[in-house]
Order: sequence, then structure tokens, then C-alpha cells
Amino acid sequence: MEAETSERPGDTLLRDRHAVALSLRPILDPRSIAVVGASRQPGTIGAALINNVKNCGFTGPIFPVNPRAEEIAGLRAYPSVSSIGAAVDMALIAVPAHMAEDAVRDCVRAGVRGVVIITSGFGEISNEGREAERRLRDLCRSAAMRMVGPNCMGVLNTDPAISLNATFVPPWPPAGNIGMLSQSGALGYSILEHLQALHIGISTFVSVGNNVDVSSSDLLAYWDEDPRTEVIVLYLESFDNPREFARLAPGLTRRKPIVALKAGRSAAGSRAASSHSASLGTPDVAIDALFEQTGVIRATTMEELMDIATLLSAQPVPRSPRVGAITNGGGPGILLADACEARGLILPELAPETLTALRRVLPRMAGLANPVDMIASATADHYAAAMECVGADPNIDSLVVIYLAPRLHDPQEVADAICRSAQKVPPEKPVLTVFMSVDGKPRALNAGARGRLPSYSFPENAAVALAAAERYSRWRKRPAGCVLSLDPAARTAIRRVIDRLIEVHEEPVWLEPDDLATVLGNAGIEFAAAVQASLEGAPDAADRLGYPLVMKVLVPEVVHKSDVGGVILGLRRREEVTAAIKLLKERMKENGFALESVLLQREVPGAVEALVGITVDSTFGPLIVCGLGGVLVELIKDFTFRPAPVSDIDAEEMISGLRTGRLLDGYRGAPPADRQALVQVIRRVSALAEAVPELLELDLNPVKVLDSGRGAVVVDGRMRVGRI
Amino acid sequence: MEAETSERPGDTLLRDRHAVALSLRPILDPRSIAVVGASRQPGTIGAALINNVKNCGFTGPIFPVNPRAEEIAGLRAYPSVSSIGAAVDMALIAVPAHMAEDAVRDCVRAGVRGVVIITSGFGEISNEGREAERRLRDLCRSAAMRMVGPNCMGVLNTDPAISLNATFVPPWPPAGNIGMLSQSGALGYSILEHLQALHIGISTFVSVGNNVDVSSSDLLAYWDEDPRTEVIVLYLESFDNPREFARLAPGLTRRKPIVALKAGRSAAGSRAASSHSASLGTPDVAIDALFEQTGVIRATTMEELMDIATLLSAQPVPRSPRVGAITNGGGPGILLADACEARGLILPELAPETLTALRRVLPRMAGLANPVDMIASATADHYAAAMECVGADPNIDSLVVIYLAPRLHDPQEVADAICRSAQKVPPEKPVLTVFMSVDGKPRALNAGARGRLPSYSFPENAAVALAAAERYSRWRKRPAGCVLSLDPAARTAIRRVIDRLIEVHEEPVWLEPDDLATVLGNAGIEFAAAVQASLEGAPDAADRLGYPLVMKVLVPEVVHKSDVGGVILGLRRREEVTAAIKLLKERMKENGFALESVLLQREVPGAVEALVGITVDSTFGPLIVCGLGGVLVELIKDFTFRPAPVSDIDAEEMISGLRTGRLLDGYRGAPPADRQALVQVIRRVSALAEAVPELLELDLNPVKVLDSGRGAVVVDGRMRVGRI
Repeated sequence: MEAETSERPGDTLLRDRHAVALSLRPILDPRSIAVVGASRQPGTIGAALINNVKNCGFTGPIFPVNPRAEEIAGLRAYPSVSSIGAAVDMALIAVPAHMAEDAVRDCVRAGVRGVVIITSGFGEISNEGREAERRLRDLCRSAAMRMVGPNCMGVLNTDPAISLNATFVPPWPPAGNIGMLSQSGALGYSILEHLQALHIGISTFVSVGNNVDVSSSDLLAYWDEDPRTEVIVLYLESFDNPREFARLAPGLTRRKPIVALKAGRSAAGSRAASSHSASLGTPDVAIDALFEQTGVIRATTMEELMDIATLLSAQPVPRSPRVGAITNGGGPGILLADACEARGLILPELAPETLTALRRVLPRMAGLANPVDMIASATADHYAAAMECVGADPNIDSLVVIYLAPRLHDPQEVADAICRSAQKVPPEKPVLTVFMSVDGKPRALNAGARGRLPSYSFPENAAVALAAAERYSRWRKRPAGCVLSLDPAARTAIRRVIDRLIEVHEEPVWLEPDDLATVLGNAGIEFAAAVQASLEGAPDAADRLGYPLVMKVLVPEVVHKSDVGGVILGLRRREEVTAAIKLLKERMKENGFALESVLLQREVPGAVEALVGITVDSTFGPLIVCGLGGVLVELIKDFTFRPAPVSDIDAEEMISGLRTGRLLDGYRGAPPADRQALVQVIRRVSALAEAVPELLELDLNPVKVLDSGRGAVVVDGRMRVGRI
Repeated sequence: MEAETSERPGDTLLRDRHAVALSLRPILDPRSIAVVGASRQPGTIGAALINNVKNCGFTGPIFPVNPRAEEIAGLRAYPSVSSIGAAVDMALIAVPAHMAEDAVRDCVRAGVRGVVIITSGFGEISNEGREAERRLRDLCRSAAMRMVGPNCMGVLNTDPAISLNATFVPPWPPAGNIGMLSQSGALGYSILEHLQALHIGISTFVSVGNNVDVSSSDLLAYWDEDPRTEVIVLYLESFDNPREFARLAPGLTRRKPIVALKAGRSAAGSRAASSHSASLGTPDVAIDALFEQTGVIRATTMEELMDIATLLSAQPVPRSPRVGAITNGGGPGILLADACEARGLILPELAPETLTALRRVLPRMAGLANPVDMIASATADHYAAAMECVGADPNIDSLVVIYLAPRLHDPQEVADAICRSAQKVPPEKPVLTVFMSVDGKPRALNAGARGRLPSYSFPENAAVALAAAERYSRWRKRPAGCVLSLDPAARTAIRRVIDRLIEVHEEPVWLEPDDLATVLGNAGIEFAAAVQASLEGAPDAADRLGYPLVMKVLVPEVVHKSDVGGVILGLRRREEVTAAIKLLKERMKENGFALESVLLQREVPGAVEALVGITVDSTFGPLIVCGLGGVLVELIKDFTFRPAPVSDIDAEEMISGLRTGRLLDGYRGAPPADRQALVQVIRRVSALAEAVPELLELDLNPVKVLDSGRGAVVVDGRMRVGRI
């Protein structure tokens, strides 16, 4: 049964990432730029583009293209790209929509290597627009030319050696380590503007617009190789190719965190998103599953996105959930503790030596529990001393310093002290600050030797960011996991069943019980079959099946068997089968039914009921689903999902992510259940999804998870396949 | 059975609110003030206090009290309050902790009517401090003098006729309609500072410190009568008297919304809170229950508290969850829609006439779904026109206007247009704005004829505030509900059982089944009793109990009866009882046990299992708890709580608040269950809690809720009572 091969996900099936990264160079690191639709008219996009490209430090040749001008922005203008007569790496296109296709053709002729199409009026407004942008994409692809847009705001690269501002809006952000992609140009810019106000810089920014060609997966490949990019921030409204994303992201997120805000969770939001960025919505549960599996940090609001990026771009990720906190006001300390613990962080008691040290440096009235409350009279020196003590405490792996300014002290002085002391905190422990003042963050916090210290206006925001970083840190430490594939013989046996069905049935079809048994058996999933028997034949049939057994009446009129007492559990011997038949006959007679045959099924007693299945999304492909606890769990929708393929680690996380996960540990005196067996069922279901692309739906429910070491048995299930 | 009386909660048991409100007048509207510990030394609290009192417009006599000065801040100083020789309404006390008691005694002697004790170093630092502050309280109470503090920051009243700034920190907030209480002075001030930056004013502010005498309940009574206060904002770290709060709040919240941030949810937060404000923590579930029942809006973060207050202080509450939205950027529109729907708000399709009107005024590329996306080119005129159209739409009851500033247009101009158009939106529909610019909110938004328009930096914050207001609006519309009391005869019968037990047992004791049956029976709660029978006696016993029945083996060695097949359900006739005994004997024999007696219990088939109980908190008193769905629900902790007494409306909300509430509607083809019967069980349990103050714990589990119209039966239960 263990002849299957185990492989690490990502070993195969990867596109050549390096080639993808290289293909974006002409766009993000061009040697020369043409601006098609450049204009002399102030206030136009064409004028803003040429001025931004020219005035932000780009040193390569810039060619304005406009048939009705000789010279624009002090540069010689050309009637077309092909008339320039010099190599053009990248063309920025800002002509009206109906002229875009000609402009792209001209670029192809001129051997341009990448285009950024600012022009809007495509897929975001109509079906014709969608067709037009597909033609643009096909044109580009036929010429091996990459395309950003259409309907975008442009691209930025702050590398001093490049200094590319190929956008039409003013702010030129400071150089930094955040690579950012936005499907909404304006929203992306708003985020950049906020980051800039917080003195946080970016490496590269790409407004992908309708992302018809260049998409998030391409940029992940680019940023993976870009040494200036250490944190990746995504604002997404749709997923063009989630499977590609799923293959690329896990390797990348081990090195560089990805923070993503995926809008369009709700029905109304998804409706708005699909009209806004010209793409179909994806079920939010699939996005969550994808992000969980790939280690992408999902922000739920714009503010959270920035709060998390602020931390990750400046500080290490914490090595444990144990947080130390220092405050000059009790209230914010409590709010921080609440917000931390609500998100899985811990504020442990401080070590005795820390308490001794704190007692020496702080006033008598200070509270030494964690958070350390230095009370309102705390001075800059108190901050410095307490940070050094708590920072060195072996019980904590991150430090949050809160300053509440009732204007008794100079915040600037406190900020200076915090910066100096941050240097003395061990470098692997992140330091966060909360400056609760309407005047905002003191500039000093950006300047210390420890680098920029993230600063938040409210304690809860610091907790949200730190919890996200800690969760990511845990994800990064987890082993990669192994994915299971079926052995060739099993695969052949399964394919034989599926191929026969697909050949016969034009429409999707449910598998008959025998076929299902064959498929599950070959996938290595145990399936408890049921047999029908006459009253006379039942004892022999029972002996053949083996005990313990369940007996159920088979009476056509009876739908809910247990409602009429038509189910007897726990039959352990032939004699009990005989007695049970007598009892059931009696009961049916009383209800006015004649009992002629019964259903016998091996009983799987004392087990935890699970559900394992596959649901298929048109863009996402197969999603593996898991739940525990029977009927009720469907009511409360306690399921976890992961896109296939699912590794052993993923399967384990699917189980531990359930609110009902504790059921397997031996709930209310029950013995612990065979968790590993359930992990195996999940992995085998995933392997089945890979072996049978025609699979449309699989629902194993219940899967009985037996006592530890005894395995897991599918008691009922159904599976549907259809032509692809 | 229906001889009980039904009463509206709050009809009785109320303290004289008006008297309480009056008792706070000397503190919040004093005719004269003494500042005990006033100082000439700049930078001291004593100097800041006297200067703030003097310089913010207070027109009554001000008496600095300091034995070592003749004159302070240009005012004649006195050695003691009793030496002033004029009536003193309120004394602000800022002397060292060890001198506070003498200062209060002096105030009592001088006939002062209220004191505000700024001095810290009491219950927040030690048990001796706790005793000292209790002595202060007793001193005050004996003289009918109210006391705010100790360990507080003071009080403010912005009424132009009063102009009281009895605090030691600088900001003097603008006059407004928010009454605010904070248990953390510094945090309260931070909130005031932020509100001020948003141009939001307050009516009164009280920093209650260790709230030893004046507490939130007192201030609710005061604000209830204060015409200047329309919204109440609370920052709480503990609850001194939740039962009083529970009696006062519901009446008040029907007229004036209360927004509360209760810190100390988590273990660490609660630990910090109890040391910070010198009080015991209360289980967070009880706080939630109290707020749910009294219509208090619970904010979960400081930012949320301000976002909600910002809306409620300036706009009406929405009449329905249906929101209309207008934006100049797709991205923020999607984020708004997501955040709205996640919190129960709806963005419906707009009415056809609205769409027609919008088409006339907006450019062709605008998206007319809700949110209306006017795209980046939107002008001030587009905003004005779209607001008028969407505002008038009968499908929506609130309006959110988003402006994303890529600096193409002047935000000021757009803000002016929004203000003008807001006037044309029907006055019962709240208007919110989102200005996504780092430059903050344009001042114009405070100035229109429609009053101040709340403005948020991110769409999600607007959604949070609007959803809270809508939820509150629904709460305000709900009927008050009726509480049930037991009739005197039933109460007497129950008291007879309890009194007997209390007399005999010094320690808390569990009720025997017979006593429990008597108590439940008299409380009007149906209880399915079980009988034990010998194998021979079982058929007769079964006939006496009535069918259908469940039979369970009684074998001392067998704990988990169903694991050995020791339970048979659905016995409907004497013959089945005989057959079942035979089967069970057989099964026990096989397991090596001798079966001698069985337990028979009336079976309640096809019912939904519920749990109804009482848990008692030392400060909160009895909390009624409800859950649905059996064993699993305890695992996922799907319970709702309400403090007793629970009305019919509360009970209904307890059920609908369960994630598993749908079980009662007829889940998966089951017939609908008797929801009203479950409501009655909850009400009767609440009545039992009122009748038996000695009740420590009650757990009715399972309560079987039968098919609609058939009632609900308690199948198992336990109850514990103890001397009070």
C-alpha cells in the first residue's frame, strides 16, 4: 500500500522563474523609454508621463512619440516608435483606446521589449473591451514582448541607478525595500502616499491594471530575484492564475514575506471588483486556502496592510509569540495585552532578574507585571532603562514600547531615548512603538542605529502587525511537507473506471457504489461496504461481513429509519443478529410495515466522524476540504480548505485549523483518535484529485476516525466525474 | 400554570435616578470651587489645576487652599477649606496621599458637596491603599458628599454657562454633545485629543480613577437628564456595580446611544487592569452579555470607539442596513462593500429611476452598480449630482461618499460640493465620508447646513461605524420585552425545598433528583424522570411510565453504556421491552457482566437538544446561558449569555444569537421545533434564578425541544445551592 512516491511540492511543474524575471527587466529596468501619446498640454496624462519620466532621474534616452509635435518637454519627438531609429526597451502607451492596438503594433515593429499601457476603456467597461485587450495580449505574446495594463497607472523603480517614474501622478516615494503591486492604480497610490507619510520607502511599484499579461505571479518571480525587494505588498481584486501563484509563492515566502489585501470578499464587493478590474470573482474561501497554504499574510483592511508592511519592512520577525511591553499609561497597556492575546500572542511574566533590574531603575509606584507600567511620570531615562531590562529578558522575543503623551514630557526626548535603547535590544527581537499623540510619529524614530522603528497611533494596530509577523514566522519555520502520488498500478486501476464512465456519459455522472469502492480502494482509502440481506440470509451474511455490525430495516416506505426504531447498533454475534431481526420485525409490524430485508454494515464504534472531500473551482482547480463532528458541523460550517496538492503538513494544519479539532485528542474521556490516519485520508484524497482531473466532486462523509493506531474508515461517500 | 405575573424590566428596583443625577451637580456644575493643594510652582499638578480652573472661563468663586501661601494665581489662598468662610460646592484635592484623608475631613467640616480626588497612591498600588480609599468613601458617604477618584485626572464641563476645566492637562476641548467617562485618565485624554483633532466636541468628561464612589452608573443617571449630552462614550477597565448598570442602561440607550470600550478582555489585560484601576476583573462573556442586553455598543479598539462616536455624535442612526455608496475609485468601493457586508450591512441594487438619473449626470465609463464608481475623472459637480440621486434612492437608508485623492482635483472643492449636496439627502439618512488623503479631513466637511459630516481615512472604518449604528438602531426598535415571575404558590413550594437544604448543609449541595423534579415542576419546566427497575419488574415499570422508552443497562462496571451496546432506543410496547431485555442480557453476558437491573426513561424522539443553565458571577450575579445541539456545541463553545432577569425578547435573542440557531427551524428536513417552548424554558430558568438567590449553578442538559407546538422537556439536569 505504501508504494506511492512522496515528493516535495514545487520540485516539478515550475515555469522557468528566472526567464520570467528577466522578461520584466525591460519594463522595470529599461535602458531607453518611448512615451507614446506624450503631450505638451499641461494637465494631460501624456504631459504628466513625459515629465515624470524625465524629471525623476532616469538617465537613459527618452523618446516622446506624438505625430503632431516636433519637440516635447525639451526632447525631440517622433511620429511613431518605429521611426525613432534607436533601440527602445520600454514603451509607455497613453493614446486613446481605439488607437492602442496600432500603437502596440508599431512597438512590435520597432522591436520594443515591453509596453506599459496606461490607456483605459478595455475589459473594465465592456465585452468588446475585453476582446480588444486580449488582442493586445496576443500581439505582445507573439512578439515575446511583455505588457503591463491596460487601464493602469504605470510603474516605478526607485533604484538610484534606475530612477524610473513611469506614472502620471506626482509622488515620488523614497527608496526602500517594499515591492508593491496594485490592481487598482489609485488605491495603490493612496497606499504609497500613506507609506511615504510614515517615511517608509519602496523598491518598485507596478500598477497592473487589468493584468492581461503581466500579473502577480510574474512579479513574484521578479521580486524573488530582486535584491532590493525584501517585502512584497499586493493589492488584488482578482486572481488570474492561482495555480501558478500556488506554485511560486511558497518558495518565495520562505525568504521574503508577502502581505496581501484581496478585495472582493463579499457579494457586493465581488460584483464591484469584477466590473472594476474586468475579471471573474473567486470564492473567498479558496483565496484564504491559497494564502494559508503558501504562507501569504492576508490583511483584512487597508490599514492592516500598511501596519503589517510597516513592521516587516523595518524589523525582524519574532521568534516566538512572547511579547514584552512597556508603557507610561495603564490603559493602553491593557488594550495592547487584550489585542495581543486575542491574536495568539502572549505577554508572559518577566524573569526574576528583569524584575530586580526594573525595581532598581523605576519609581516605587511603577507596575512590574507585563506590560510594565512606568506611570505618567516616566521620563526619557526611565524609558531607556526599562527597554534595556525588558529587551534582555529571556522570556520575551519582541518588545512594544508605548508612549502616551499628556504633554508632561517632551515626546521628542522620549523618542530619542527609545531609539538609543533599541540598539541594546538583541537584534533578533523586533521593537515596535506606539506613540499616542495626534502630532504623529516623532522623526527621531526613523533615525536610530537599529534602523527605522515602526510606530503606531494605537496599541491595537501594533498588536495586529506583530501577530501577523509572528504567524508568518511560524509558517516560515514549518517543514515543506511531502505530497503523495499514487503508484502506477493504482492509478491504472482508477483510470480504467474513470475512462469507462467518461466514455459512456456525456454529462457528469455519479459513481455507482462498486466503482466508488474500486477507486477508493486503489487510492488506499478504506471503505466500509454494506450488504443487503433477506431476513433468513442475514445471520450468514453477518458472519461473512464480521462483527460488530449495524442492522437497518429496508422498507421502501421508511425514509428516516431511526425515527421508527429501524436501526440497531452494536450487533456482536450471530445470536444478536437473530434477536435483532425479531425486534425489528416487531417494530415494523407495529408501524404497519412488513419487514423483508435488512441492510448490514460493519459498525465502526466509538469513532470520531470526519468529512473529507473535494470541491472544484473553475479558476482554482480542486480544493480539498476537511471537517469533523458529523451533521452539526455542516450547520456551523467548520471546514478547512486547501488547494491540491496537499502535503502532510498541510493536512495536519487542515485538522488543527478546525474549531472541532480537539475531538481527535480524546474529547470528554474518549480515547485519542487516529489523527495520522485522517492525515493520510486527506493526502490520498489529494492524490486522487491529481490522478483524476475529471473529478468534479467528492464527498466522503462520514469518515470514521478510529482509536489511535486503528486507522480511518469511510462509511459513506459519493463522487462525480465529467468530461473536461 | 400561567398564573405568573409578567412585568417590564425596570418598572421596579430602580434607585432614584433623579436624586443621583442631582448629587453630581456640585461636581459638574459647581457654584464655587476650592483647589486643595493649589501651588505656585510651575510644572506641578497643583499649579496646573488652579490655572485650568481659573483660565477656562469659570465665573464662580475659586479658592486656592495651601497653608504655605497667601496668594496663588492672583487669588487669595486659604490654609484650609473650613477657613474659607464661604460656601464651597466642590473641592479639587491634589495633596500627597497621606494627607488626603485630612483634606476630605476638612471638606466635610466645611460642608463641601462634592470632591474630586486627583491624588494617586491608593487602591491601584496596594491593599493598604485600597483600605485608605474605602475610608475616604465612607467619610464622603457619611456626609452625603460625592467623590470622584482618587487617582484621576479630573472633570470637564464645556457648557458655556459653566466652563469648568478641573483637570491638570492642557487641552480644552470644543463644546459638543458627547459625555465621556474614562477609568484611565491618560487614555481618556488621548481620546479627547483625537476627537478634538477631528473637530468633535464633548459636553462633559469625567476621569473616574479608582471609581470608589462616583461610577459609571451614577454618570449614566446624570447624562440621562443632561440635555447637552446626546452620545455617551465610556472607557472602562472594571465594573463596580453591573446590576445597577443593567437596570439603568436599557432605558437610557433607547434615548441616547452608549459606546463603550471595556479593556481587560484577555488574561494579561485583565491582570493589568486589576492592578491599574484597583478592581477585580469580570469575565468578558458577562460584559458582552450585559452590553447585548442593555443595547450598549461595544467597541473593540480605541480607534473603533472614536469612529463610532464620530458618527453617532453628528448623524442620525440608519433606519435599515441598506447602504448606498459613491466613489471615484473602484478599489475603495470594493473595500467598503466587503467591510459592510462582513458586518451585516447591505449594498442593494439602486432603483431604476436612480440609474436613469445617474446616467444623465455621470460620464459613460462610470459604473452604476452600488457602489457607484464615478472613476478618477469625477469632478465636484459629479459628486454633487450623484449624491443627490443616490441619496434620494428609496432602496437605501444611508450614504457613504468616498474620495480618493490622486491630486487631479482640488479636494477642498469636492468637500464643498459634498457638504452642499448632503443638505439634499433626506435628513433621516446618515451621510458618511471617506477622504483617503494623508492631508486628513477637509475643514469644509464640518461646516455644512447638514452639520458635521463624519470623515474617515479608510473605507473600512466608515463601515465599522455605520454597522455599529445600524445594529444599535435595530436594538432601539425592539420591544422592551416581558420578564416572568413565579406565582406565590410555586415560589413557596420551591422555597420549601431550598430552605430545607440550606438549613441542613453548611457547604453548597447538589439537589437530589426528587428535589430537582419538585423545583423544576414548580417553575413550570417539564422534566422527564427516569426509573430503575429489575429485569422482571421492567415491563410493568415501562407500562407505568408510558411509551416510547429508552432502556439502559445498569451494571456498576459499565461507565460508557453505549460503547458496550447497553442502550436501546425507541421501545414502543411491552413486547419490545421484553425482547430488549433479552438482547441486553445477551450482550452483557458476552462482555462478562451479569445484568440485573435497567434504567427506563421516557424517550423524547426527533427533538433538538438544547442546554439551558445558570452560572453565577460574584459581581454580576446570575447569568442565564443557552446552547443548542448537544455534546459538540460544548466543544465549539457556541453559547449565549444574558444577565438575569431575561425577558421574552432577550430569550429570543439568545436563541437567534447562536450559530446553531437554525437547528430549530427544521434542519435537513426535520420538522420545525418548538422555539417558543425553549423561550419559555429560558424565561422560567431566569424566574427561578430570581426566586432562589442561593442558586449557585443550574445545568439543564439536554433540554429536548420537541416539534413545533409540542413543548420542551428536560431530560437531565443538575442544580447546586448554597448559603449566601
